[in-house]
Amino acid sequence: MSAQVAVIMGSKSDWDTMSHACAILEELQIPYEKQVVSAHRTPDLMFEFAEKAAGRGLKVIIAGAGGAAHLPGMVAAKTVLPVIGVPVKSAALNGLDSLLSIVQMPGGIPVATVAIGKAGAINAGLLAAQILAAFDPKLNERVQERRDRIRDEVLASSVELGEIL
Amino acid sequence: MSAQVAVIMGSKSDWDTMSHACAILEELQIPYEKQVVSAHRTPDLMFEFAEKAAGRGLKVIIAGAGGAAHLPGMVAAKTVLPVIGVPVKSAALNGLDSLLSIVQMPGGIPVATVAIGKAGAINAGLLAAQILAAFDPKLNERVQERRDRIRDEVLASSVELGEIL
Amino acid sequence: MSAQVAVIMGSKSDWDTMSHACAILEELQIPYEKQVVSAHRTPDLMFEFAEKAAGRGLKVIIAGAGGAAHLPGMVAAKTVLPVIGVPVKSAALNGLDSLLSIVQMPGGIPVATVAIGKAGAINAGLLAAQILAAFDPKLNERVQERRDRIRDEVLASSVELGEIL
Amino acid sequence: MSAQVAVIMGSKSDWDTMSHACAILEELQIPYEKQVVSAHRTPDLMFEFAEKAAGRGLKVIIAGAGGAAHLPGMVAAKTVLPVIGVPVKSAALNGLDSLLSIVQMPGGIPVATVAIGKAGAINAGLLAAQILAAFDPKLNERVQERRDRIRDEVLASSVELGEIL
Amino acid sequence: MSAQVAVIMGSKSDWDTMSHACAILEELQIPYEKQVVSAHRTPDLMFEFAEKAAGRGLKVIIAGAGGAAHLPGMVAAKTVLPVIGVPVKSAALNGLDSLLSIVQMPGGIPVATVAIGKAGAINAGLLAAQILAAFDPKLNERVQERRDRIRDEVLASSVELGEIL
Amino acid sequence: MSAQVAVIMGSKSDWDTMSHACAILEELQIPYEKQVVSAHRTPDLMFEFAEKAAGRGLKVIIAGAGGAAHLPGMVAAKTVLPVIGVPVKSAALNGLDSLLSIVQMPGGIPVATVAIGKAGAINAGLLAAQILAAFDPKLNERVQERRDRIRDEVLASSVELGEIL
Amino acid sequence: MSAQVAVIMGSKSDWDTMSHACAILEELQIPYEKQVVSAHRTPDLMFEFAEKAAGRGLKVIIAGAGGAAHLPGMVAAKTVLPVIGVPVKSAALNGLDSLLSIVQMPGGIPVATVAIGKAGAINAGLLAAQILAAFDPKLNERVQERRDRIRDEVLASSVELGEIL
Amino acid sequence: MSAQVAVIMGSKSDWDTMSHACAILEELQIPYEKQVVSAHRTPDLMFEFAEKAAGRGLKVIIAGAGGAAHLPGMVAAKTVLPVIGVPVKSAALNGLDSLLSIVQMPGGIPVATVAIGKAGAINAGLLAAQILAAFDPKLNERVQERRDRIRDEVLASSVELGEIL
Repeated sequence: MSAQVAVIMGSKSDWDTMSHACAILEELQIPYEKQVVSAHRTPDLMFEFAEKAAGRGLKVIIAGAGGAAHLPGMVAAKTVLPVIGVPVKSAALNGLDSLLSIVQMPGGIPVATVAIGKAGAINAGLLAAQILAAFDPKLNERVQERRDRIRDEVLASSVELGEIL
Repeated sequence: MSAQVAVIMGSKSDWDTMSHACAILEELQIPYEKQVVSAHRTPDLMFEFAEKAAGRGLKVIIAGAGGAAHLPGMVAAKTVLPVIGVPVKSAALNGLDSLLSIVQMPGGIPVATVAIGKAGAINAGLLAAQILAAFDPKLNERVQERRDRIRDEVLASSVELGEIL
Repeated sequence: MSAQVAVIMGSKSDWDTMSHACAILEELQIPYEKQVVSAHRTPDLMFEFAEKAAGRGLKVIIAGAGGAAHLPGMVAAKTVLPVIGVPVKSAALNGLDSLLSIVQMPGGIPVATVAIGKAGAINAGLLAAQILAAFDPKLNERVQERRDRIRDEVLASSVELGEIL
Repeated sequence: MSAQVAVIMGSKSDWDTMSHACAILEELQIPYEKQVVSAHRTPDLMFEFAEKAAGRGLKVIIAGAGGAAHLPGMVAAKTVLPVIGVPVKSAALNGLDSLLSIVQMPGGIPVATVAIGKAGAINAGLLAAQILAAFDPKLNERVQERRDRIRDEVLASSVELGEIL
Repeated sequence: MSAQVAVIMGSKSDWDTMSHACAILEELQIPYEKQVVSAHRTPDLMFEFAEKAAGRGLKVIIAGAGGAAHLPGMVAAKTVLPVIGVPVKSAALNGLDSLLSIVQMPGGIPVATVAIGKAGAINAGLLAAQILAAFDPKLNERVQERRDRIRDEVLASSVELGEIL
Repeated sequence: MSAQVAVIMGSKSDWDTMSHACAILEELQIPYEKQVVSAHRTPDLMFEFAEKAAGRGLKVIIAGAGGAAHLPGMVAAKTVLPVIGVPVKSAALNGLDSLLSIVQMPGGIPVATVAIGKAGAINAGLLAAQILAAFDPKLNERVQERRDRIRDEVLASSVELGEIL
Repeated sequence: MSAQVAVIMGSKSDWDTMSHACAILEELQIPYEKQVVSAHRTPDLMFEFAEKAAGRGLKVIIAGAGGAAHLPGMVAAKTVLPVIGVPVKSAALNGLDSLLSIVQMPGGIPVATVAIGKAGAINAGLLAAQILAAFDPKLNERVQERRDRIRDEVLASSVELGEIL
Repeated sequence: MSAQVAVIMGSKSDWDTMSHACAILEELQIPYEKQVVSAHRTPDLMFEFAEKAAGRGLKVIIAGAGGAAHLPGMVAAKTVLPVIGVPVKSAALNGLDSLLSIVQMPGGIPVATVAIGKAGAINAGLLAAQILAAFDPKLNERVQERRDRIRDEVLASSVELGEIL
């Protein structure tokens, strides 16, 4: 089955963060592809990727970038597929620059922004899954089961906590 | 046709902002409903709303709130439908508190966050439309036409600018 | 004697911080209970906990959470017991997101917010004690004695400092 | 009946904000007193006030201040009564300075901090009420009734919203 | 003589700010052109503009944008001409988002960033002039004369000040 | 000769920072004393210290504190001696809270604030020296000689740099 | 009598703020002078001013500037007189840029920084007075009397407040 | 051939950052010189350097500094050569103070500001190269070749990524 989700990132060093999005997609059995696409260093590749994305059967794009993070917004400008932006933690400003560069898009071109760093990457995978699941009852069940399992883990951890001290 | 998108907000005073999301849905002919649901003042209504949303045929939820904005994240905790969060500009901190309260969700429960204020509300409407359009070719055309029209408006405004000075 | 204070936290990883609140309650001989309750992963447990808290004889709730920290505010929305919120230091933004998510509550639902991290957890324990002590002369004495002891430790440390250099 | 709550503020100009705390106490029929006490301009009055507060029968102190807001923390240093701090919006930094000056107390001396400005002042009044109500069933009923009434107002506003557009 | 500097902006509403850059270029008799080019709404026009800029004889590009301001960085990704970025003041965050989105570029693609708003636009015009002036003695004289004139205005304003009070 | 400068700090843990102020005073042969005085844990000692400072012959007070740093401002409220405030780097917010708590004093009670951390402590020592030196020609010479020596060290380091690469 | 304090500012538009420093010096009968000296537009004047300041009998320099505020720090680099820096509120960032540009001086060159805007200018005047007063018993009395008067005004305002509501 | 670019920095400790600018200039075969010039500790050297820079044949100045970073702006005030400012990461505030001190220049004196830290230093070298290259076809080719090489490296890294997982 062809990829429904593409996970792209501005640099190979973003893989530490973005691998968490891929792990979720694996876990939920969603076909996906992954690629380094840099807004600043490979702008033509980025435009070509975005233009062809819908035609290739992709339904959702996850884009991670740090600092002056232009990748999610520029891909969103070139496709009407939903684009999820992951702000990667940056060297000096801890990802606040990444966050504002991704989320503060002007009216007309939305980017679905998630949290800075690992939690955001996990949630990008889950958000892509939930978008697909709204139209796919089988996937919807797997997403719901994951939620239930995590709830149960929290309930269990509370029992463990009771034994501390 | 029953509503595909619900637009909810934490307070009636958020309507000035959230009306922009509704206007986009109107324009793109997407059936929607709107409601005041406060995380803090009507928590039970909020949970009931979120639990029943999928069963009522909703596909996407747009939730706007300001300050310690808990509405989008709490609705997201009670449904696996995709939830779009709109940070409403707050009295003291200009919406930075709203933004961080919405976007910095822990791994497990995603909220698709957009920009603070009016631009964010417009983009929430468009993001909902793009999610639906990925599975609805007719709507996809309308979304694409809107993009083309806005592009043409920018091109026209450049001509006007040339005449200034 | 049944618990007067409940210490809850959004995740087991918050224990490093929240244990400092428990240590204060131990020291001041205040009966308490502790539990992991996640706003996002166990929302129903959270509501049930908050609804039953007053009936079970609890007088104060201490809730710690990080990032988009919704636990203190949502518990506060479901009980009229005083709720103390502890912003746990977060991975990217050092707890500024936790602080704003907890303290910037809308008019109607107060959360008594303390400092980010360990100092805040200590003070959450002390604030709970001081609330109880306003109605319990014996406890009031223990709280006052603790203050006096700490004052004396500072005075002693000044003497030690005089010997440096 | 003698005052149970004192509302103090660093300057007469803080009255615009702090009057909202007093209005809540009036509404809930809680005996209170109000006073200008400046940490920086009347430090001796402040110490005298704090030292005598418990002896005069006060149970809770609400203190509002802006900028380098030292009033809540210094009063807290001189009494073991619970002190609620209200960060007043400041001229240049919108109350972020007030908030950090009040909430970031070192371990040992807690201040129960609420939101910046009017919402915070309202919640300071409510938090004081909730602290008292934990030991006063009659007041507890009034607090709960206020919650119910506000919930009903939100529900009503949702109906009004349905009629817009 | 063909334009040496292009002044582009993301939206017609940026003209209030960017007109100050144009005024400087007029004053210093530097041939320039101005245009609305939106990174998000006219991405293809932006790429075409940037690709052809050097070939058309342009030497410097000034690009102004607000919010998630991607225009300066994306133009810089498509040309090796020096690009000057002007952060336009934004609705919610006063241009802090614009500034970080423009200045925090990854290593490889520089943008010469100036101050937020009007002062930045003036300085963008001057910086373009100084770059050209480094290779154009006549222009260098005009730039130096402007400096001298402004210095004299400050000296004169000091005399006026002496007469106040 | 009796102490002209007092170096006080809110906690013994501030000594790592404040020792740099003392080292400068030693180097410039200015008689000084040092003490732990906590605004929150030893408020009475603080007031007594501040009230007696001028009478004991002190000319300048240096006060360092972190977080909700009230020590410099409260000492300043109780004496008309010049008070220099050193914001100590804090655990969560890197000293931004310390800085704002110290510098944003209301009109009427000044605190001479220096940089966060070690650089600030060094400069607190130098500022105290410069205040005294304005009325003490011998000290003025020593201060000026220190300046000259540091200038020469920078000039030398430039030579070393030339040899790198 | 020749001026003991110089009040300088980076631009005539800073007069609205800096006039408050001058008003304090007038009130306390301290001879002073005022001047526009711009670090960026009149750098040579600035250096000349700073170099000659001590020789002309000045004891303290007050320097106000906004944005990338270099005036206080650069004057401090050219004199060993104590320099007080006033961060003037800036157009985009409300004076946070001014504050950080002035207060975060490197070890070696201190600037005594006060609050942003009007309160800071008032305190700059008072700080200058307190520095002089440490060596001038008559002035010390006037400074102390001003403190007492302001204390009495606060006490009076508390009486007025009692009559509200 | 005499130096076309000067790389100056406020302290020898800035070399770790600024060496990245020099490495770019080496790589692109641009003659350059490097020097420690401190705005605060060697102000006269700074002025002399800036005044003579143009006469010695320099075309661009790169200046790096941290904290209250005055070097780029003050050099810019004394020359009409284009000045590129590199905000060096600071101890407490991660370079946000450095950034604002450099970029927020008043209208009249531009500084071409780049990102905080290493990425900024790399881009300072490239921006200097691009300014020179606009008037030097040979250098322009080398700059363009570097761009192409980096683009190819990104394309290659995407292939490697495909092999992970």
